[in-house]
Formats: sequence, structure tokens, C-alpha cells
Amino acid sequence: MSEAVNQGHVEMHVDEFGIATIEFGHPMSNSLPGKILRKLAETITDAGKDSAVKVIVLKSAGDKAFCAGASFDELISIQDLETGKVFFSGFAQVINACRKCPKLIIGRVQGKAVGGGVGIASAVDYCYATRFAEVKLSELAVGIGPFVVGPAVERKMGLSAMSQLAINATEWRTAEWAMQNGLYADVFDSEHEMDEEITRLATVLAKSSPEAMAELKKIFWIGTENWDQLLAERAGISGTLVLSDFTVNAINSFKKK
Amino acid sequence: MSEAVNQGHVEMHVDEFGIATIEFGHPMSNSLPGKILRKLAETITDAGKDSAVKVIVLKSAGDKAFCAGASFDELISIQDLETGKVFFSGFAQVINACRKCPKLIIGRVQGKAVGGGVGIASAVDYCYATRFAEVKLSELAVGIGPFVVGPAVERKMGLSAMSQLAINATEWRTAEWAMQNGLYADVFDSEHEMDEEITRLATVLAKSSPEAMAELKKIFWIGTENWDQLLAERAGISGTLVLSDFTVNAINSFKKK
Amino acid sequence: MSEAVNQGHVEMHVDEFGIATIEFGHPMSNSLPGKILRKLAETITDAGKDSAVKVIVLKSAGDKAFCAGASFDELISIQDLETGKVFFSGFAQVINACRKCPKLIIGRVQGKAVGGGVGIASAVDYCYATRFAEVKLSELAVGIGPFVVGPAVERKMGLSAMSQLAINATEWRTAEWAMQNGLYADVFDSEHEMDEEITRLATVLAKSSPEAMAELKKIFWIGTENWDQLLAERAGISGTLVLSDFTVNAINSFKKK
Repeated sequence: MSEAVNQGHVEMHVDEFGIATIEFGHPMSNSLPGKILRKLAETITDAGKDSAVKVIVLKSAGDKAFCAGASFDELISIQDLETGKVFFSGFAQVINACRKCPKLIIGRVQGKAVGGGVGIASAVDYCYATRFAEVKLSELAVGIGPFVVGPAVERKMGLSAMSQLAINATEWRTAEWAMQNGLYADVFDSEHEMDEEITRLATVLAKSSPEAMAELKKIFWIGTENWDQLLAERAGISGTLVLSDFTVNAINSFKKK
Repeated sequence: MSEAVNQGHVEMHVDEFGIATIEFGHPMSNSLPGKILRKLAETITDAGKDSAVKVIVLKSAGDKAFCAGASFDELISIQDLETGKVFFSGFAQVINACRKCPKLIIGRVQGKAVGGGVGIASAVDYCYATRFAEVKLSELAVGIGPFVVGPAVERKMGLSAMSQLAINATEWRTAEWAMQNGLYADVFDSEHEMDEEITRLATVLAKSSPEAMAELKKIFWIGTENWDQLLAERAGISGTLVLSDFTVNAINSFKKK
Repeated sequence: MSEAVNQGHVEMHVDEFGIATIEFGHPMSNSLPGKILRKLAETITDAGKDSAVKVIVLKSAGDKAFCAGASFDELISIQDLETGKVFFSGFAQVINACRKCPKLIIGRVQGKAVGGGVGIASAVDYCYATRFAEVKLSELAVGIGPFVVGPAVERKMGLSAMSQLAINATEWRTAEWAMQNGLYADVFDSEHEMDEEITRLATVLAKSSPEAMAELKKIFWIGTENWDQLLAERAGISGTLVLSDFTVNAINSFKKK
């Protein structure tokens, strides 16, 4: 296994207004190995429990890709179903951490989002983006599918947009399209403009009623009470498919390149 | 308590084609006290039972705001949970009256809609608007939330648009945005053009099969059978929050202005 | 009964890549009598079982209307509830065949779609269209309603768009509008451009993992397990309404023209 699976970071900073900024990053286009995904889920959960935190901003490092999905190096090392399930549970844990966190989470998507990256953008409560924040669910191209992130994407964008992304797995959709389909609340020309708006909204929310926001959070996520189990089942589907001849061959041909 | 809670009107007129026009109004930007909300709900219910009525047009008075939500004067007079529940049940009754009315209801939104006003626009079956019909769910700004209107807004506009409105509570969204997100079927440049189209559609529907329209109404509202109870529970959430220190302080600082 | 109910065709061709193209047609604007609808449902079901088929393209004949709905000649011959139920079950069978087919289905909509035609466009998994592919649910104009196609249209386009189409039954909605509301994934200026893109996507999918696509198909249709029964009940609603005085009179006045 390459060094990539041991790289990456998750950092949290809480300012004097109670705005917690959580940043994840990885040198390879912010594609995330399991280790980082688990740390990200834990950090979100901790922020949810920290009474000093009023609102959370979730962002990634750098000014290129927001998140290229799961670590490809880790994917190609999967040899058995159990490892596969654990691997595909990585984004499930992040999505479930966002879902169960009683604080509102603002997403900041500065660039392309792929696979699990689209899942994160779907799982935050209010998502800002720049016009560079194109989206793609590329899983089918390697013989799997967006089974784990599917429920989060469908909940936010609807069945039609989710299935379009899942089927047409090699095509980028624009940030504008993602906004029209409910993934992003707003799309900006630059990171600078996006950050001004994020600061404004986060500051307003940090001064808003914590009880009211906690109740809002509950009503936003009604009907997802079974997602701990559902996303685990979905990880099982991907974990099974990734061992199929089709995917093994697809991955081997990637490796040769 | 100010005089405002005793002001306002609800009127119904049925023309020779069976088109019932129901108008509500209040001198303060059509913000509605409980008394008027109850009368509006009753009038919609009565029109639903009246065999002379084939289709209903729901509108508000004047050419400015469609509806500024619930009466602020009544809100600030709430001292206990029971009064709070009754207050927040006002729009619940109107929404449930629209939902249970066996006739199709056409909405006419000539101007801004806030809070419960967005709830009414969501609860009609087909909603026309002018380009002045901006929307806002401002509840969070005073420490509560759009809990009662939430189910109606989400049913019509989807989870993403509903949560965007609920979280970004101080921002107006354009009529165009509301149309793209399913609240309005069409947006016109002027009241005149909107009224021509309303007359056309209402006239067509008044001549359409009452049995077919009653069956359509049923399928549009499948899955909302629990809303009498659900919206009462939601009124309880708001009724509790409005007594919190946060909201009491927020209201007091409004009063001082 | 006129000759029209015995006309029409359904043809299937499978190419060397496993792309099955299913074409239906009828001389009267591709309006479909029960006989053709049953054959279309069977052909889709057979293609789903055929291991040589990797992906399905569903299209209609000619370069005018995609599908004008159910056969009007057959509709006006209905004299009793049982015949009515069978008639209205025609599109239910096609929708259910699409739903239960384990292969992904790409739709090709080259022109106007009415009633059941919109149902077919909704029931495929990924739908392409040209800018001529306007849509209308005209059922209410003859005293019935889009009860059978309603669940498919609502699943793909949402409640708001479905109810707008059902209520405003005489108005065409543009292909652009249908795309913005999730019916079409993409809209092209010409059939030629659409066909290039269909060939591209179908070729990619024919080479994709059949297991992964079968799992995707399952998650796209979660929650529709009761549609065999639901759409049969819906056919019963239409079957009852079509015998009402209102519809009998409406049909008689059409006949006189």
C-alpha cells in the first residue's frame, strides 16, 4: 500500500464567536483515506458536543479540488469483503456525523467534488460553492456505484439529479447545475466572495438561538433515523462489487497506466 | 395588547361560474392575527363544502405585501405555553383547511410573503405570483423557526429550498427563485397579467369535472394524513421556543425600537 | 371501434455491444392502443431477462410526436368499468415493466409527449430529449386525470411539477421546463445531436459492470414496491371517472367535431 493512505489532516479552530471551522485535506486532490474520514467524523461529532461551538463551517484545504472522493490507493488494496465494507463505511461515518450533529453545518466547496465529496456537500445543512465546484459521481466507471452517498445526494438533490449523476458517471456537471438542483444554496465567482458570505451567515447563526437551531436541525433530518444501518448496508453493496471480476480488471488496467 | 390583533378581514365572493374568491387582509402588511387566521380557515372549509363553488382563488388585499406572516403584536403578548400553542396553530389551521378542502385552490401572490405567508403559498394547489413576490422565512431571527409551515414548504419546494429559507432567515429570495423551486407555477411582470391568467385557469377549472378535480386533490395530498397532529406538535415547538430567554430578549429589544 | 386500435408496432433490435433499441409506433401521433402497450411492456420485460442485453434505449417512431398518450379511439369505446380498468392499465404495465427491468433504460424523446407519453419519459432511468419535446398532462380536459402516470411523474419531477401539469391540463410546458424539473437529463437542438449523445452513453453503459448497474437500478426504484397494486388502483379511478356523465358528454362533443 502506498504512503498516501497515511497522509492527510483534519484540523478544527473555534473563534471567539463560537464559529468552528473544520478543515480536512490530503495532498492527492483531497481524496480521503479511511483514517482521515474517521478523524473527520470524530471531529464533527466532537464539535457537536462542544458547548463553545455555535455553528460549524466545513471546508477543505487548498484552492483546487474540494474532495476527489475516497483514496484510490486504499481502494485498490481491498482484498476481502470485510476490508471493503470498512473502506466504504468511511464516508458513511462522515455523513452520519453531519446528520447527528445538533449544530448547523455550513459547507464551503471551492472546487471539484467527486463521489464521497458530493456526499459531504450533500450532508451539510447549507452549502456554498464557487463556480469551479463541478460535481461527478464517478463510481460506476470503476464497477461500483454511489451507494453510500446516494441517500444523502437524493435527499438534497432529488431522485432525478442523483440518478443522472450515478448513471452518467464520466460527465462533470457544473456548479450552476448543482445549485439549480438544490446541492448548493449559492454559487460565487471567487473564493473571496464566497468567504465574505460564509462569514456573514456564520456570524448571524452564531448569534442565533441555539435551541431553535437544534430544533431546525432535527426537522431537516426527519426520516433518516435508519441511516446508521442503511449506509452500512450500502457499504456492503460496494464492498461486494469491488471484489467482482469487472472491478478487479478495471483497477488492474488503471494500475498499469 | 395593541389594537392590531382585532383588525383585519376575510371576505368571500362566488361568481356565476362557481369561482369563489377568498380575500384576507390586515392593515399591517397583511400580517394575520389568530382571529383572522381562524376565520380564513373556516371560510376555506365552508367553500369546500359549498356545492355552488367549483374552484377557489385565494388572495390578499392591496398591492403591496401578500402576507407578512403572523401578527407581531400578538406574538409579543405571549406569556405562557398554552397561548403560544394557540398562536402558532393559526397558520396550521389555514394549511390544514387548504389540504382538506376537496376543491382545487389557486393562489394569487402579488407581493412579498414571509413566514406563514410562504406557508399559505405552499398550501394552495396552484400558485401564481408577480415578480414582486419575494419570499423569506424569518422565524430564526426572533429565536423560533418555521416549524409549522415547514412541512407545507418542504412538500412543495423540497428539503433543500425549505432548509435554505429556514437557515438564511434574513435574506429575501426572488420570485424567480421561488418558481424554480416549485413554489410558484408562473411569475408575471404585473398583477394585470397575473389576473388575466388566473381568470383563464379558474374559468377552465370551473367547467372541468368536479369528480376528477376532487380525485386529483386527493392524490396531491397523499401522505399528509397526519398533518392535523403533526402541525399541532410543530406549534408546540414554536410555543416552547418563544418563551425562551433568547426570544424574550430578542422581542424586548424590538419593543424598545 | 375504428381501425386505429389494431394498428401500431413494437420492435426490438440488439446490436453487437448489447445495446437493445426498442421502438414503438402508431400512425396517429404514436398514441398507443392497449394491444401495443401490452406488447411494449412485454418487450421491455423480455429485454430485461435477455443476458445479451446490457442497456436499453427506448424510442418511438418518426420525427414528430414522441407519444400522444393512450388511443383516443379506444378511450371513446369504453362502456363499462372492467373495460375502463383494462384500458387505463395499459401505461401502468409499461411503467411497471420499466421499473422492474433490471437493466438501465435510456429514453429518447424527439417530440411532444402527452399523458401516458410523459409517463414513459418519467419511467425510464435517464431521459434525453430535443427542444421539441414539450409535455402536457391533458387528462383533466376530458374529465379524467393523470392518476396512473402520476406516481411516475411525481417520483421524477416532484409534487409541484406533477400537480402543475395535472391542473393546467391544456398548457404545453417546454422541454427546457421539463429538464429543469428533472424529467429530462439533457435537451438538444436536434435529433442528430441527441442521437450522438445517446450512442455515447449507451456504449459506455454497455461496457459498464452489469452487477453495479443492476444494484443502481434497485436503489433508484426503492419505495415503489407497491406500484403493481397502486397503479391498478389508479386505473380504477380513471376507469370510474371515464363513465361519468361529464366525460361521456365531453367525449360525445369531441366525436361530433
